[in-house]
Amino acid sequence: MTKWVYAFGGGRADGTAKMRELLGGKGANLAEMSAIGLPVPPGFTITTEACTWYYANERSNPPELAAQVAAGLKAVEAEVGAGFGDAANPLLVSVRSGARASMPGMMDTILNLGLNDVTVEGLAKRSGDARFAYDSYRRFIQMFSGVVLGVEHHHFEDILELAKEDKGKHLDTELTAADWQGVIQQYKKKVREETGEDFPQDPQAQLWAAIGAVFRSWMNQRAITYRKLHGIPGEWGTAVNVQAMVFGNMGEDCATGVAFTRNPSTGENSFYGEYLVNAQGEDVVAGIRTPQHLTVAAKQAQKSKLPAMEEVMPEVFQQLDEVRGLLEKHYRDMQDIEFTVQQGKLYMLQTRGGKRTAPAALRIAVEMVDEGLITREEAVQRIDPASLDQLLHPTLDPKAPRTTLARGLPASPGAASGKIVFTAEEAEAQAASGERVILCRIETSPEDIHGMHAAAGILTTRGGMTSHAAVVARGMGRACVAGAGEIRIDYAQKQLRVRDKVLKAGDVITLDGGSGEVFAGAVPTVEPELSGHFATLMEWADKARRLKVRTNAETPLDARTARSFGAEGIGLCRTEHMFFDASRIVAVREMILADSEEGRRKALAKILPMQRQDFVELFQIMRGLPVTIRFLDPPLHEFLPHAESEMEQVAEAAGVPVEQVRTRAMKLAESNPMLGHRGCRLGITYPEIYEMQARAVFEAVAEVAKSGDTVEPEIMIPLVAWPKELELMKAVVDRVAGEVSKSGGIAIKYLVGTMIELPRACLMAGEIAKEAEFFSFGTNDLTQTTFGLSRDDAGNFLPAYEGKGVIEQDPFISLDQEGVGQLVRMAAERGRAARGTLKLGICGEHGGDPASVVFCHKVGLDYVSCSPYRVPIARLAAAQAALAPLERDV
Amino acid sequence: MTKWVYAFGGGRADGTAKMRELLGGKGANLAEMSAIGLPVPPGFTITTEACTWYYANERSNPPELAAQVAAGLKAVEAEVGAGFGDAANPLLVSVRSGARASMPGMMDTILNLGLNDVTVEGLAKRSGDARFAYDSYRRFIQMFSGVVLGVEHHHFEDILELAKEDKGKHLDTELTAADWQGVIQQYKKKVREETGEDFPQDPQAQLWAAIGAVFRSWMNQRAITYRKLHGIPGEWGTAVNVQAMVFGNMGEDCATGVAFTRNPSTGENSFYGEYLVNAQGEDVVAGIRTPQHLTVAAKQAQKSKLPAMEEVMPEVFQQLDEVRGLLEKHYRDMQDIEFTVQQGKLYMLQTRGGKRTAPAALRIAVEMVDEGLITREEAVQRIDPASLDQLLHPTLDPKAPRTTLARGLPASPGAASGKIVFTAEEAEAQAASGERVILCRIETSPEDIHGMHAAAGILTTRGGMTSHAAVVARGMGRACVAGAGEIRIDYAQKQLRVRDKVLKAGDVITLDGGSGEVFAGAVPTVEPELSGHFATLMEWADKARRLKVRTNAETPLDARTARSFGAEGIGLCRTEHMFFDASRIVAVREMILADSEEGRRKALAKILPMQRQDFVELFQIMRGLPVTIRFLDPPLHEFLPHAESEMEQVAEAAGVPVEQVRTRAMKLAESNPMLGHRGCRLGITYPEIYEMQARAVFEAVAEVAKSGDTVEPEIMIPLVAWPKELELMKAVVDRVAGEVSKSGGIAIKYLVGTMIELPRACLMAGEIAKEAEFFSFGTNDLTQTTFGLSRDDAGNFLPAYEGKGVIEQDPFISLDQEGVGQLVRMAAERGRAARGTLKLGICGEHGGDPASVVFCHKVGLDYVSCSPYRVPIARLAAAQAALAPLERDV
Repeated sequence: MTKWVYAFGGGRADGTAKMRELLGGKGANLAEMSAIGLPVPPGFTITTEACTWYYANERSNPPELAAQVAAGLKAVEAEVGAGFGDAANPLLVSVRSGARASMPGMMDTILNLGLNDVTVEGLAKRSGDARFAYDSYRRFIQMFSGVVLGVEHHHFEDILELAKEDKGKHLDTELTAADWQGVIQQYKKKVREETGEDFPQDPQAQLWAAIGAVFRSWMNQRAITYRKLHGIPGEWGTAVNVQAMVFGNMGEDCATGVAFTRNPSTGENSFYGEYLVNAQGEDVVAGIRTPQHLTVAAKQAQKSKLPAMEEVMPEVFQQLDEVRGLLEKHYRDMQDIEFTVQQGKLYMLQTRGGKRTAPAALRIAVEMVDEGLITREEAVQRIDPASLDQLLHPTLDPKAPRTTLARGLPASPGAASGKIVFTAEEAEAQAASGERVILCRIETSPEDIHGMHAAAGILTTRGGMTSHAAVVARGMGRACVAGAGEIRIDYAQKQLRVRDKVLKAGDVITLDGGSGEVFAGAVPTVEPELSGHFATLMEWADKARRLKVRTNAETPLDARTARSFGAEGIGLCRTEHMFFDASRIVAVREMILADSEEGRRKALAKILPMQRQDFVELFQIMRGLPVTIRFLDPPLHEFLPHAESEMEQVAEAAGVPVEQVRTRAMKLAESNPMLGHRGCRLGITYPEIYEMQARAVFEAVAEVAKSGDTVEPEIMIPLVAWPKELELMKAVVDRVAGEVSKSGGIAIKYLVGTMIELPRACLMAGEIAKEAEFFSFGTNDLTQTTFGLSRDDAGNFLPAYEGKGVIEQDPFISLDQEGVGQLVRMAAERGRAARGTLKLGICGEHGGDPASVVFCHKVGLDYVSCSPYRVPIARLAAAQAALAPLERDV
Repeated sequence: MTKWVYAFGGGRADGTAKMRELLGGKGANLAEMSAIGLPVPPGFTITTEACTWYYANERSNPPELAAQVAAGLKAVEAEVGAGFGDAANPLLVSVRSGARASMPGMMDTILNLGLNDVTVEGLAKRSGDARFAYDSYRRFIQMFSGVVLGVEHHHFEDILELAKEDKGKHLDTELTAADWQGVIQQYKKKVREETGEDFPQDPQAQLWAAIGAVFRSWMNQRAITYRKLHGIPGEWGTAVNVQAMVFGNMGEDCATGVAFTRNPSTGENSFYGEYLVNAQGEDVVAGIRTPQHLTVAAKQAQKSKLPAMEEVMPEVFQQLDEVRGLLEKHYRDMQDIEFTVQQGKLYMLQTRGGKRTAPAALRIAVEMVDEGLITREEAVQRIDPASLDQLLHPTLDPKAPRTTLARGLPASPGAASGKIVFTAEEAEAQAASGERVILCRIETSPEDIHGMHAAAGILTTRGGMTSHAAVVARGMGRACVAGAGEIRIDYAQKQLRVRDKVLKAGDVITLDGGSGEVFAGAVPTVEPELSGHFATLMEWADKARRLKVRTNAETPLDARTARSFGAEGIGLCRTEHMFFDASRIVAVREMILADSEEGRRKALAKILPMQRQDFVELFQIMRGLPVTIRFLDPPLHEFLPHAESEMEQVAEAAGVPVEQVRTRAMKLAESNPMLGHRGCRLGITYPEIYEMQARAVFEAVAEVAKSGDTVEPEIMIPLVAWPKELELMKAVVDRVAGEVSKSGGIAIKYLVGTMIELPRACLMAGEIAKEAEFFSFGTNDLTQTTFGLSRDDAGNFLPAYEGKGVIEQDPFISLDQEGVGQLVRMAAERGRAARGTLKLGICGEHGGDPASVVFCHKVGLDYVSCSPYRVPIARLAAAQAALAPLERDV
């Protein structure tokens, strides 16, 4: 015979925490607590299989169910010492749904089931509190009628409001037992009017109606939609939990409370919680009465005058404190618990893993290792890598007052205050004179990079989480709020407008890049504190991981930051970012706009010494580590002069008429620059550019070698689609290396490889690996081309895609493992097959996304590279990937 | 002992035509002719293996070679009845290189080898023509010194010019024997000056020096470069051919000529050629003497007064005519031959497959089947599919005089004359009043489509073979010259300038889209004649092929043209092309710029009846056949109004302020429109657009059903990357189909499928096929995304890529089988595995490229779809694919 009903309570249980599929999350947890001897109000769980049976059999119950429920109920009666429907000593129960996964939209809870016109009097007598009994009964009628009978809520609200008016009272708590009896009469009348039947007085009928309502709620529209969106199969079904009621509001020997087994804010190992004497759970959170501390220590620390539970109910507190220890030992994690004390007896109503701040998570994990509760590996696996982000940036002082101006997307974490500026030039100028500024732009472009670097924060009114502003800001560790569409920026007037408010350049605003909020004026911020726990945990993580973690960095500042965060080299140095500096851009433009190789060489000669000096600095910071240098990559149009004055500057520098500059600029304009004349296509058409860059790299290597520093440059040729492209560019690099090596009398060690960022490069990886000594997956561009999706333009429709359930996550944020991942895997396999020593890495934005890092580990890459502020996240994610069991389908 | 030398001549040969690898192309062919009994001057071939040995052994000859060459020479002496170096009766030979593949850049030919100060006198006596003998000797010195000794050509030219001046003569032919003797003295002196040695007098020394020169020329720089570019391995080596000289200029019983075994221009089965009595080969082509016809019939047809060979040398002609028959029977193809008659004896110097015009190729192939020479399948395989292009378009009258203005790329075949217009509107207006116009633009955009359709030809000054202008013009069958960079167009002045010439709107020009030339004024054209041979051959082709051939067409004109060319349905109807019509564009813009669904629906209601009528017409033309309709696809910006007046029109139609239109237009602008908000992304965000299109399709089906016509619409959802996109769009289509079916009381048969045009769609093909009933490969976009290469922008660097040998062919013209082909194959396999009945086609430009069609056949597609004028090409290519043996690596 199928077992449809699993009992728990009295220190025993039929089920365990592992039976989530059969008992649902709630049922499994109640069983577990009961089984380990905690004082759980007794009850039973009707299995999810019963629900499945219900739907498979025209919404009827399995034949054996009635008998099993009856037996379950009998056990509860025995345990509690009361009778279901007993006039003198009635057993009351709660009925709750509980699916395998937490699922909003389904029927939640019916309390006090078992009350009727007769048992309510028994409850009044036994509790000695008639007001409590009638209040409980009217609540039950209201809940049951709404959820099971479908009577709309507002009917009951109306009756209650009128009753209070009649009596001249304002609060529910002012109503007396007699008042509630009047309300109950009217409630029952309304139920009869609305349903055509009397409110059910038979507790058995109440119970079965409630069970049926839970089953039916599994198939209501909201639940169906929720399941569809979250990919939960309809076949799972829901369990039903029936449990004896306990009351914290039956007198001064009753209480109710919530607690964390450790401090969820700091992680300190102290009992942390609140309770109220003679109260219900909702009273603790409702804010009408001031909750009291559990411990004397906490009471003193908070300078509270209200007595602590430790003082008021020392024995029960003692018992609760033991439960706390038991739970932590059992679950081996900090717990969030709910309890009720009924007439001096403690009942545990719930336990679950407690939410905590990132610093608390770190402290708890590290201290639990010290306490011998968990292993170091478990500690590493306990921390959500993404949560480290909040540790590394300043945050708003939570106590500071603030005035919200507008809201955008939380594009790059951290909080920053500063004066409004509208141009990159202004940002640089003001920052140079010591001002903190917020750069406000409709959107940003590569020409703004130096202004973004100079600013404390960046605000844009257009663009998404992966817009240029967002990506660059995250890379630089600048706070950024992107796409704040309510704000209108007027560059000409040098002002921004939010509805009727106008702010001018120089006005101060504050950004919270973690929430996307924009505030007027300066809101104080607090600096991050990297505790010893952080260092300890990262050390454990580093021992566990196989993947190396490098950083994407071009500036000495970024390189230093990254190294302090544990970067093991540079995985992507975007040389073009070195070209936007105001002191260089004219020479760069001169080079790009030259009509001839001779003209280009003339301009390149001006750039060479600057570029070489860049590398010298980077190499010194990264001494002993590998540095991957990507040669010039971006669409040329990003460098083109726009303003007339810029054209004139270039014409003057090149010594040509401005008309010639203008014509050439027009000729270079492209309809789809992302798919245009960029990457190694520049190197193929103008080999002298890559030749200059190779010379700068190798001469810098020779320079730092003089002071005994070594560095392993890895020259990366971008955007290779044809193996021949790499062959031709490698020949240029090798030739220059030979020349520098000879003239400098120094042996230069270096690698030449390519960025794998086009589908064709993945398909041809076997051929390409014959030339390449390393592959670095440029998954930003690979995602763009695999999806045919421009990162800059996707903001117009990706939100609709998330809304309609086409995608769950922006593929520019977390690597599309199903699609793009196939290409990455293919390229890794084909590349390694052709060259066993091939070094493999990733340098797209995904290198700092924990899920993507796990994927990189599984695919067998050697390293990930990410922006400096994501280095710790990547280190931790890499460790978790190494510790997690390898999934079968990989 | 290795055989290094293969003899031929006297009706025998050691080798055959199949021994190309060993004997080179030329040697194998000489052997073959000799073996089938043709009178070939005797000689021998030194094998390519000897060349390989030469390089493998420090540039020395195999030890046995000297003896084998001596034996070969002895056999030639015996056959000719002369002695090598014999003072009285000298044997003269030619020495030529001959590799496996024809290879420019190598040493070509040395004639008259064996002459020296002594033998020249013997030659003079035996020929009775001293002038001939000394002329031959000086030619030999000149050639040998240049090729073997490295004396620069100009030295000999200088001497000859001075000699003529001295004698007061203008032509070489005016010089006497004595004059040539003087020249020879000076030549020899110059050789001594330049080389420090006397010109070699020993014929054996001459021979071995020449053989060595041929071997060395295999490794000269030009040859190496050529091999590298064409992937010819250096190990192949070259053969050396040594052959007895024969002379057509030794008297009135001598002659020389060239001929085709059939008329290469018309294909008529008549002997076609020219000859000259007492002449050398170069005299026939030099134009100094008028060549004479071979046959009396040809002479009479051309009204020539000069006697035909048939009259002058009836026996030799008879023999030549027999050779003609023998060659056609043997080679089973029309031959291009060279012959010489020396003192009444016929010698065949060369035979090879004759080049012919496309009409001739058709006629020859069909008639050879009738004559029983070849099978129908062979006839089908004989025709180059690409050559059919010239049959389908008007061409310039070859006899008409012309003045070339400029030269661009031959972007779309056909010739056309007309008045210059500079805007699409002007083109439409003038065409409506009966003018033939040439639309001249810097480049074209989708808004120009109607103007392009109205024009007889299109000229652009920017863009390549796959620019918008080129692609659209080919699709429409309009002549197009693209990227004529010498021409400057000035829209404001309404004129174009080529160097110092200025043409104004209204001036007449002529385009030759087959050559890329632009002519001033009207050059007469001749209309194509589709002969019965064409129909016959296409019928045979249709029997052979498995692939169906459909067309890409939106207009009734294109659909009709394509059907007349044998299209078996429409494979791609680009609905957006129906939207650019001047009468619709305002409503379309109104729809796109609407801020709300309501606004869009209002505009869509205006478009629905027009779109429905489009489909009614197409369905009637294509009755009984499938029609694939692609829903709205292009980047919205293509529809955006640019001019202020256009904005105002839209604002008025929509009833909104013009400011609102402007703001929205700005918001829709994209940085990379090709990767932007387009394809089904439009359908997902604005489902009402696809809903309208589905309604138009199904209502049109219902409409044509009234007159008993059936059609099978295949609804194609573009740019699917996520399977869910197709699922959502299919749901819309199915719902509308149900509604129309119900309201019209008619059962509607249709398919819903998708365009596979993104790498991710290929990777996810198995999932997508669960929703899709067909796949149509959009290889234009798939090429763009796989390479990360914009078709519109690639013109800036692809020429450099071809120049540097990175690519052999533009991947937008011929499908990149190595890279993109992998994705197509993967998608086909995964799609078919998921749904066995999945219909597979291709609708990119590649559907009309013969090599790509063969690939489609191999991959197992069901059909290809191409522009109307390429339908016959695709039919023929499909037949050849079916007939060709399947290659192993596929």
